[in-house]
Amino acid sequence: MTTSELKGGPTQPEICAVAVDKLGIRPGDTVADIGCGTGTVSIAIARTAQRVYAIDIRPEAITVAEDTIAKSGLTNITLIEDDACSFLQESERIDLAFVGGSKGLPRILLLLAEKRVRTIVVNAVLIETATSAINTMRALGIFAEAIHLQVSRSHDLAGKTMFKPENPIYIIVGRCVSY
Amino acid sequence: MTTSELKGGPTQPEICAVAVDKLGIRPGDTVADIGCGTGTVSIAIARTAQRVYAIDIRPEAITVAEDTIAKSGLTNITLIEDDACSFLQESERIDLAFVGGSKGLPRILLLLAEKRVRTIVVNAVLIETATSAINTMRALGIFAEAIHLQVSRSHDLAGKTMFKPENPIYIIVGRCVSY
Amino acid sequence: MTTSELKGGPTQPEICAVAVDKLGIRPGDTVADIGCGTGTVSIAIARTAQRVYAIDIRPEAITVAEDTIAKSGLTNITLIEDDACSFLQESERIDLAFVGGSKGLPRILLLLAEKRVRTIVVNAVLIETATSAINTMRALGIFAEAIHLQVSRSHDLAGKTMFKPENPIYIIVGRCVSY
Amino acid sequence: MTTSELKGGPTQPEICAVAVDKLGIRPGDTVADIGCGTGTVSIAIARTAQRVYAIDIRPEAITVAEDTIAKSGLTNITLIEDDACSFLQESERIDLAFVGGSKGLPRILLLLAEKRVRTIVVNAVLIETATSAINTMRALGIFAEAIHLQVSRSHDLAGKTMFKPENPIYIIVGRCVSY
Repeated sequence: MTTSELKGGPTQPEICAVAVDKLGIRPGDTVADIGCGTGTVSIAIARTAQRVYAIDIRPEAITVAEDTIAKSGLTNITLIEDDACSFLQESERIDLAFVGGSKGLPRILLLLAEKRVRTIVVNAVLIETATSAINTMRALGIFAEAIHLQVSRSHDLAGKTMFKPENPIYIIVGRCVSY
Repeated sequence: MTTSELKGGPTQPEICAVAVDKLGIRPGDTVADIGCGTGTVSIAIARTAQRVYAIDIRPEAITVAEDTIAKSGLTNITLIEDDACSFLQESERIDLAFVGGSKGLPRILLLLAEKRVRTIVVNAVLIETATSAINTMRALGIFAEAIHLQVSRSHDLAGKTMFKPENPIYIIVGRCVSY
Repeated sequence: MTTSELKGGPTQPEICAVAVDKLGIRPGDTVADIGCGTGTVSIAIARTAQRVYAIDIRPEAITVAEDTIAKSGLTNITLIEDDACSFLQESERIDLAFVGGSKGLPRILLLLAEKRVRTIVVNAVLIETATSAINTMRALGIFAEAIHLQVSRSHDLAGKTMFKPENPIYIIVGRCVSY
Repeated sequence: MTTSELKGGPTQPEICAVAVDKLGIRPGDTVADIGCGTGTVSIAIARTAQRVYAIDIRPEAITVAEDTIAKSGLTNITLIEDDACSFLQESERIDLAFVGGSKGLPRILLLLAEKRVRTIVVNAVLIETATSAINTMRALGIFAEAIHLQVSRSHDLAGKTMFKPENPIYIIVGRCVSY
């Protein structure tokens, strides 16, 4: 299985750039990439963070991510084939979390809020997931902002330029105040 | 050849609705649909206008449009396989013009301005065509407004809803002041 | 109070054109405009429909709409200052419904589904309202499609052209199969 | 004069994140920020690059940027109050260039192409500027891609969420092949 065959495919570079910017990564941070898929976002995060835990419950995602991460040459990413909630209940300190997968989102957000994760960034393509993320974050008192991002990309048409749109995405950001 | 096989395909219904609204059609109007393609826009215009001249230089467009128009049951559309400029130079009064094709656009706009066409609506997918339409209309003193339209359409994903974008379009509107 | 002072303001012409197109109005139709606000959409509908009931619970909306409708010269719009649900429970046949206001939306959709209204078009600016409309329509088995519409409008900047975006809108469409 | 008073205002964080990502900055790079305005982009670039030359011909931009840069604590940004072309003609090696200002763009792009700058990123709000950047880069054989970016940002409306759009932007990327 290759990167583009994995369901969802790799995160578009522009979406990745904005999501990583929203995280506000500091050099010493430990970051969880929940539903890491192809590992594209993990790699972008690992360029600044100290350690990245890339979690996915799908064995085929782990296989693809393993390959992508190996090619990147980065050594500070740990791949974990597990359920996100199990991982979060057992894990030590997590400074930041990126959530690319939507399964069990409310419970994941609750666990992240309990851990006082500094910033949580959720990427959602489904309007139901976006609304659920916003509602849950509002209920937990950690909602910071949401963004709707529409990227269109130039395509050559006989030497002229048309713009073809990528799928729009919601980026929802939560912030926990530390005690 | 079917509607969807013709280069460019039929105009999206939302784009069509906005473009027709911009024309501001009155019941007695004669309208030119320049680069009529599949005839979709001609049909929408013909529901209100008195007469529509649907012009396309491509024989395959005329064949497809003929079929679509026959199915619509409308009898006030005249199909013309010709170059737009030839048609405009010989035609009598034209009240409104919709321009879907971009070939020879500056000259078409000049001819339409000379004929004091009440409203001209240009649909453009290429940024170069949009800019050329705006520049030419500004130079002719007939530029009214331009719109960038991005429609995304719901798709079912396991009972949930994602939005997939259609290609964005520029709609450029010119208005001639009548003497 | 003027049109632009009423909360929400008038529906943008492009949004109005698309929403009215989605309704699929036939000449003999009776249409309910629920949460009619300034009356802009009612007027657009009344140009084709036989009768429009424009309902708003806010006295200030009725005052503004009264004025706008009078100026339009149309005589087939009946303004009703009432709660939408009360109106729907007592009303006779309704062929189509446009819902611009979001208060009590699930119950309004239930009543419209019970009345076998041919097409329901909901305009929503809030993501929660859009998701609620989609969910309720899915539950009622009447969900047809949803659209996300982003219109940007040209503004002159020293003879050049920048595009300023209007607020994006969700248009959700339901269709009842008649017995 | 404050940041928000300077014409154009600071670059939106999402736009900045994407533009900087497109540059592909390497730690040893020298970068020119042409038409630096408030200095927001210079600061983002300077976090990775070795040296940033922030150029603006407007004294008021230099004043604002001076203040913003001082607050950032970064010491690898050199502010230059000069015409971009004069600067480029006299400057030594430049690895990357970000162009935020549009004055004299074709000539700036020509000079950057002659200097074999690795990547050029142009941000444009005007459709004429975007088209000019694309055309010039195509003519110079350095056009890589163009992006249209539409960011909408959540606003609270009585505990619910509406999305208000920022001005859309074109990001045009050129790449020179080095000998």
